[in-house]
Order: sequence, then structure tokens, then C-alpha cells
Amino acid sequence: MTQPPAHPLAVPARTWFESLRDRLCAAFEAIEDDGTPPGEPPARFTFTPWERPGGGGGTMGLMRGRVLEKAGVNVSTVFGEFSPEFRKQIPGAEEDPRFLATGVSLVVHPRSPHCPTAHMNTRFIVTSRSWFGGGGDITPMDREAPWSQEDAAFFHQHFREACDRHDPGYYDRFSRWCDEYFFLPHRNETRGLGGIFYDWLGDRTPGKGAEADFAFTRDVGLAFLEAYPAILRRRMAEPFGEAEKAVQLHRRGRYVEFNLLHDRGTLFGLRTGGNVDAILMSLPPLAGW
Amino acid sequence: MTQPPAHPLAVPARTWFESLRDRLCAAFEAIEDDGTPPGEPPARFTFTPWERPGGGGGTMGLMRGRVLEKAGVNVSTVFGEFSPEFRKQIPGAEEDPRFLATGVSLVVHPRSPHCPTAHMNTRFIVTSRSWFGGGGDITPMDREAPWSQEDAAFFHQHFREACDRHDPGYYDRFSRWCDEYFFLPHRNETRGLGGIFYDWLGDRTPGKGAEADFAFTRDVGLAFLEAYPAILRRRMAEPFGEAEKAVQLHRRGRYVEFNLLHDRGTLFGLRTGGNVDAILMSLPPLAGW
Repeated sequence: MTQPPAHPLAVPARTWFESLRDRLCAAFEAIEDDGTPPGEPPARFTFTPWERPGGGGGTMGLMRGRVLEKAGVNVSTVFGEFSPEFRKQIPGAEEDPRFLATGVSLVVHPRSPHCPTAHMNTRFIVTSRSWFGGGGDITPMDREAPWSQEDAAFFHQHFREACDRHDPGYYDRFSRWCDEYFFLPHRNETRGLGGIFYDWLGDRTPGKGAEADFAFTRDVGLAFLEAYPAILRRRMAEPFGEAEKAVQLHRRGRYVEFNLLHDRGTLFGLRTGGNVDAILMSLPPLAGW
Repeated sequence: MTQPPAHPLAVPARTWFESLRDRLCAAFEAIEDDGTPPGEPPARFTFTPWERPGGGGGTMGLMRGRVLEKAGVNVSTVFGEFSPEFRKQIPGAEEDPRFLATGVSLVVHPRSPHCPTAHMNTRFIVTSRSWFGGGGDITPMDREAPWSQEDAAFFHQHFREACDRHDPGYYDRFSRWCDEYFFLPHRNETRGLGGIFYDWLGDRTPGKGAEADFAFTRDVGLAFLEAYPAILRRRMAEPFGEAEKAVQLHRRGRYVEFNLLHDRGTLFGLRTGGNVDAILMSLPPLAGW
């Protein structure tokens, strides 16, 4: 079997992503504890490990809860060789097709239409070069509602602070990148109300050295961990009606359209034989058209 | 404005597709009449015309009914010029980029999980050459259920008879083509239980002359009109439970995955600036993951 390319941060990055997964899942389970009536058992994550035939594997974490209708939190560390068709597209893969990719990703679809859907992913890729990537973004169901604007501002503020601690230009650049990435051209609309997105940090995107880029990536994860559960707790008990549920199903339909038509990560994963269940865990529990 | 390329069958084909639309919609509305309790108004199609900026347009027909939770029946006749990137892919477009495309398409998502979803499309394309294409396919919700096998056999039998009237080789070839086309590689499964699919008939696919290929295409539409409403009537009153509804949501999720990830018609339409609402009318009213 191909040995993964070596990098001093490969093990620390993996360890970090897995510990962040633990903290995120704990935060979501604590929300279920608080949102479940006394006497009923609160929902819990179930974890399913999987192996990648070419090398490595991961763990899918899935909770179908009362507050969080569907929460998927995945970690994976995979390695192998890029097939010839991908070598030209991936920095450093033309010289040596071997790669290692480790990361954490999550999508949460809350039951209440007052609670926004959110996505977060951070990752570290090693070829003959190496880089970090990731980000987080928020998708309120009714984007015109005042609470949606308030939640989006709160969410952005956490990422702005995390960015500013590392580079005064990061937030503007990465929040714009987020709006450009999570865009549905056929609908001429963004998927949600943004956040940040960055890729190839330390390679095509100039960074501050691998250690500093890793520290930034950790701060992105922590910003999400601070911001999103707090938003959920603020909104989870608010009353809502059938009309709002209909808007939620519609917004989730657009979410599906983005993920299956446009999301580069999803399409790349499916084309390269990734774990289908893990990749498509991002899809909502229920969506309508 | 570009004039459409001329063909003696362009007007007759369009007239046929529109009359078939009328007959299909009448059949579906009659099902709503019979499936709606006395005293309640039965659902009806609403028709929305649209124009294509480059030339032509169409009419979307949509009914959200009691038996047919969502039925979309569209006709369109559009013309213009293929952009340079498509000219090499389309027969006859390298010599002259002008095209005319006329057709009818439908997708029906019934409310009962005992009623299969079905799709039908027939079309006539004119460039400096011309050809017919189309087909129909059936997607039972629980494909292992005995009634699903029975319905699929009945559906196939109608298409087999329509094919056999024109060429003894059509059914085998076009039903195999259907299974190959409506296939989800990432799930390693077909979308449904097949039917027939044919394309480029009279061009890359040898036909029997334009008049005969048009007659075959009419028979394909009539086979669908005979088979599918009859299946709906056979199943619409059967009782079902929550577990079957869950299976339906799952099957519909796979339907969405196929249409957004793999369906060439959908992706081509979205890339070429087709009418998004008409193209995505195929998506189910509610789907789950």
C-alpha cells in the first residue's frame, strides 16, 4: 500500500480535527439535553467508522434529534495517489501523485425554522506541498427575517475576530470568497448569508508558515464552536408556524441544489470514490420543491 | 432575431406534443376528480407561459393535487444558435449553429407510496440535421414490493408493444438504454425500474425516415398515456402506512440525486440558460435524507 506523504503537522492536525469534532458533538448533545422535555431521552450521536479502499478512512457522526433534526459531523484522514486526471489540478501532485487529506466537516439542519442551518469544514492537505483550507457559513431559513440578519452578523463577527488575530486582510478576502463559493448561478442567489471560506492556505493562497496557518485553522474551528451553538440556544425555544416550516423546506431545497449541482467538494468526493454516505450526510432530513 | 432552421415536421411535431400535453393533463385531472371526496374541489393544472430570451418559449403546467402530490407537464418550442462550446457536441451544429427544439416532458410524484413516480419526455430537434428522442420510465417507491414488479411489467409491456409495431429491435435496445441512462453510479443503482429511452433517432441512431420516426415518437407518448394513468387508478385507493411514506421520501431523495448529479437534460438545460423553474419542476414535492 502507498505510504502517505510525510509532514510534521499531519498527526497534530488530525488530532486537532478529532478533538474539535468531540467538542462540537458535545455542544450539540448539550443542546439536545436542554431542548428535550424531562422524562424523554435526549438524542445522541451515533458514530460509524469507515475505511477507504485506497488508504485511510474516517468516522461519520450522525444525530437525529429534537432540536437538531439532523446533525452530521465527520472526520476523515485518507491517503493514496491521485489518478492521472486529477494530478494537474492539485498543487504538488504532478511531481508526486501521493496525498494525505485530514479534516473535519459538519452540517447541521435544525428542526426550528428560526434556527439557521450551518456548515463548517477545516482540512489539511499534503502532497509534495501542503496547505490548509476550510471555513464556516450560515444559512438562515428566512433570510429577510430580522433575527436572521442578527444571527448572521453575530456569526460573521466571530469569524472576523478570528481572522483579525492572524491577518487584517483575511476576513475581507475570505468572507468574499465564501459568498462567491456558496453561490447558485442558476438561481442567481447565495446559498445563505455567508461566513468565510479559504483554500490552499500556505500554497496558492499566501499564508504565514505552516504552524501559523494551522493556528488560524484552529481559530476558525473555535470561532464556529463559539458562535453557532450560541445562536441555536438563542432561537431554539422561539415559537413558529406552518408558513415558516414551508419556507424552511424551500430553503433546504436550494441547499440540496447547491450541494449536488455546484459544491466542488461534493462533486470531487463523488468522482474520486469517496465515502458516499459521509459526503451526502450534508443533505437535509426533509426538503421540498 | 435568428430564424429557426426549417423542417416540414417542425409544426406537426409541436402540434402533436401540445395535444399530447392536453390529453395527459386531462387524464391526470380525471384522476383527481375520482380521488377527491365529494364536496371538495378537485385540483387542476395551472399553466404558466414563459419566453426564452434567445427565441421561443413554453408553458409550464403544474398541479398539486390530492392523488398527484405534484405533477408537472411542460411543453416548449425554443430556437436560436448553439454557443461555440456546444457546437461540436450536437449533430449538425458545426455546419450551422441554428437549432429548433420542440417537445413535451412530464414528471408525476403521487402522494401514495403505492403509486409509482413516472417521467415521460418526447422531443424533436432540428439543426442542419434532425432527430427525435424521448422515452418514459417508472420509479416505484418500494421496488421490492410485489405490486411494484407488477406495475413495472405492465408499464414495460405497453412500451414493448409500441416499439414492436415499428422495429423488432427497438424495445431491447431502448429499454437497455433506459437502464443505462437512469443510473446513479455513486449509489450503483438504477433510478427506477426502467422503461425506454432513445435519442438521436434518425441521426446517430438509425431510424426509418422522419415520418416513421415521428409516428414512433407519437406511439411512445400514447403508450405512456395508456399505461401510467391506469397504474395510478389501480393503486390510488390502496391503504399505506408511515413506514411506506418513509421509504417514499428516501426513494425521492435518490430521484433528486439523479436529476441534479447525473441527468444530462437537466444539466444541459441549466448550463444553456434554460427556464430553471421548468427544468427543476421534476423535483419531488418533499424528499428526505
